[in-house]
Amino acid sequence: MASPGTSGTPPASLHPIRYELLTLGDELLLGLTANGHLTFIGAQLGRRGVMLGRNVTITDEAEAIERQFRESWAAADVVITTGGLGPTCDDRTREVLAAVLGQKLVFDPATEKAITERFAQFGRVPTANNLKQAYRFERGEVLPNANGTAPGLWVEQDGKILCMLPGPPNELQPMFIEQVIPRLAARGLLLGREAYVQIRSAGIGESLLETKLQPVFDRHGDALSIAFCAHQGQVDCRVSSPQEKYSHAQIEAVAAECAQLLGEDFLCYGHDSMAKVCADLLRLQDKKLAVVETATGGLLANAFTEVGGACKFFAGGVVCCSNDAKMELLDVPECLLLQHGAVSAEGAVAIATGAAERLGADYALAVTGFAGAGAMEGAGANPVGTMFIALHAPHGVWSKKLSYPGPRQAVKSRAVNAALDWLRRELYRAQSGAAISLPRTGAMQ
Amino acid sequence: MASPGTSGTPPASLHPIRYELLTLGDELLLGLTANGHLTFIGAQLGRRGVMLGRNVTITDEAEAIERQFRESWAAADVVITTGGLGPTCDDRTREVLAAVLGQKLVFDPATEKAITERFAQFGRVPTANNLKQAYRFERGEVLPNANGTAPGLWVEQDGKILCMLPGPPNELQPMFIEQVIPRLAARGLLLGREAYVQIRSAGIGESLLETKLQPVFDRHGDALSIAFCAHQGQVDCRVSSPQEKYSHAQIEAVAAECAQLLGEDFLCYGHDSMAKVCADLLRLQDKKLAVVETATGGLLANAFTEVGGACKFFAGGVVCCSNDAKMELLDVPECLLLQHGAVSAEGAVAIATGAAERLGADYALAVTGFAGAGAMEGAGANPVGTMFIALHAPHGVWSKKLSYPGPRQAVKSRAVNAALDWLRRELYRAQSGAAISLPRTGAMQ
Repeated sequence: MASPGTSGTPPASLHPIRYELLTLGDELLLGLTANGHLTFIGAQLGRRGVMLGRNVTITDEAEAIERQFRESWAAADVVITTGGLGPTCDDRTREVLAAVLGQKLVFDPATEKAITERFAQFGRVPTANNLKQAYRFERGEVLPNANGTAPGLWVEQDGKILCMLPGPPNELQPMFIEQVIPRLAARGLLLGREAYVQIRSAGIGESLLETKLQPVFDRHGDALSIAFCAHQGQVDCRVSSPQEKYSHAQIEAVAAECAQLLGEDFLCYGHDSMAKVCADLLRLQDKKLAVVETATGGLLANAFTEVGGACKFFAGGVVCCSNDAKMELLDVPECLLLQHGAVSAEGAVAIATGAAERLGADYALAVTGFAGAGAMEGAGANPVGTMFIALHAPHGVWSKKLSYPGPRQAVKSRAVNAALDWLRRELYRAQSGAAISLPRTGAMQ
Repeated sequence: MASPGTSGTPPASLHPIRYELLTLGDELLLGLTANGHLTFIGAQLGRRGVMLGRNVTITDEAEAIERQFRESWAAADVVITTGGLGPTCDDRTREVLAAVLGQKLVFDPATEKAITERFAQFGRVPTANNLKQAYRFERGEVLPNANGTAPGLWVEQDGKILCMLPGPPNELQPMFIEQVIPRLAARGLLLGREAYVQIRSAGIGESLLETKLQPVFDRHGDALSIAFCAHQGQVDCRVSSPQEKYSHAQIEAVAAECAQLLGEDFLCYGHDSMAKVCADLLRLQDKKLAVVETATGGLLANAFTEVGGACKFFAGGVVCCSNDAKMELLDVPECLLLQHGAVSAEGAVAIATGAAERLGADYALAVTGFAGAGAMEGAGANPVGTMFIALHAPHGVWSKKLSYPGPRQAVKSRAVNAALDWLRRELYRAQSGAAISLPRTGAMQ
């Protein structure tokens, strides 16, 4: 499995701190819910120069919680727990951890008031169970919860920190960003700003990216620490400076050099998605986009509608399986579908153009193909995994054939990424003044 | 956090076995990749009457792997590891675990042959690194990998089992189902068939479901064990029989009673998705479906295209933000949009009907609204979270207004579930011969 190298380890200027994350809940162990807290908290800490030492998921049972917490508290400097702060009798995490730490739980009138007010908003009165959530550690603090009734809890003891967070993501996430990160930063347990400058690239592999950027890094010697992280069609290059040999401004200058060198392989600084970068370029150029897809079934449209303010640039999308739909909604001539088949370079071009014209868009992306067994069977020259992508732009229209291995969801995701990257490159070139451009690979027509 | 109760604990007939899952990889701890192995393996074991005792995610470092494996091996009966079997020098899990177990790694000619043949398929020759994957434990077995080069490894020692699986999901998942589950079942470490009969319901809450079914369960006393699991608009009720007081056929008869009692709140036995159930009903009734969506951005269409053979029943989908797109693609009259606004009961009905007519579909679902800040701003009577859903059916068209709290992705997901459930109920009633039906809640027009 690809390793992102040392990107998550703190710069040497930061004393190495061991973080453990305890995620509680039978629903995680039974595979009913994905462990999104690991993904979120892991990424947030990573940006501040810390890699979690361990994540342990255990059941809601008091005995299991006690055993695991004792072990983690002995091993780590910071223990973060998620879940188990609810109002029901199952939710005993608070009591168990207080017992391990030899602390009493005390009633917190301010929290009671917040809970009562929150219930009043919905015309309800809290029960005794709900008011269980108003207890805090005797020698500890409360992290107010703006989006739910269970506050977070914060304890400093034995030179260590315990931070207990509520389970619902819409409560946990703002609490973590607004309250937990600043507290940890104030105690020097993570960096007060992002630990690195991230250069995000798209459409080139990790080793080629490294080769391209190496001359820049060579000039700076051991003043810089470089780490690469590959994920979902993108490779991130994280540049930091051990012992703060370089200032943040100097690191940013190096990153700008890298971006310049990468040209259109450069996606963005930081963490933006490919769709977000496309959206920004479309808005900047005052252009509209339409999409049309078969095998990706709505995921391409969804990538753009995830971006805030999509109405400003997104003219619309069509998901069509049948030839009838292509003819009716997109004015694709029947003879073309009969001659070439719907899954063909010509078919992809026809639906892209149809979408652009019917929706009054300047650009249109089309993705068609065979993503997986059953949904749309591959045949002959086009086995499962074959995808055609077409791009309609103000100055022309192209299509290319791609082929992906793997299960349906992997094929869909890779095809969406390839389509987004193609559009992004065209928009980048248009922005740079290269009015007429040719696709880099697999160009047809 | 809601607990699924005792559903994952083994029936008393099965000796309690402790399973631990070790998921390896910095990319998990840095939040770059979701821990899908926990979700998959946890669910697979849960179906066979086993709940994971613990899942631990650690880095790829040899020292961390050794420490964690020693601890887990001492505590558990079965230890499953994922990842760390790749060809690079980072991938040292095999060596570390062999050292802890006091075993040698030996070269396995059959695995070498499989690796070489796999490379030959792609016209390549394996390097020395790749052939590192041909080593197995001296006293252990190989689990062949049909979808990649790294085989799984299986060791029985000290009355315990170690099972090492490759990281890529398309390699791990079939290996787990086809090889690991049968081996564990043969050793009595999990049940040879599903541990329970699952009744899946949709559109009613956990407590109402429990109230409805309680009379059935009361008649069977302690012969049955019942557990409820709520997730994403559905509630599963798992019925098993402690000490096998009831045969599987008897449990199935009880489940059939429950299904009968639930009527249209019954979704399916087992694990099918709402879209799959709708698809089956559409195929059975030889009907076609179209969808049109704004705020859900393609997710509704995608739910149907995830079902195998979608072309047979899915006429197509439209994702439209602008009024222009609604007029151009769906023949919605401009005066209607001006009079009522696009986000209105009337607007939802108009786009549903337009989609059905233009795509030649018998049924059409429309979802429109304000899912989150930015993308489509809510205003006045329709704040963010307001969604209108419309259903066009052969015998009429209806729309209802819904309101969801939470962040954009939660609103989108809940709106998609509500739309799917509405269609499912209509199809269920059509199937049952109730030719004319009325929506249950929030009916308009």
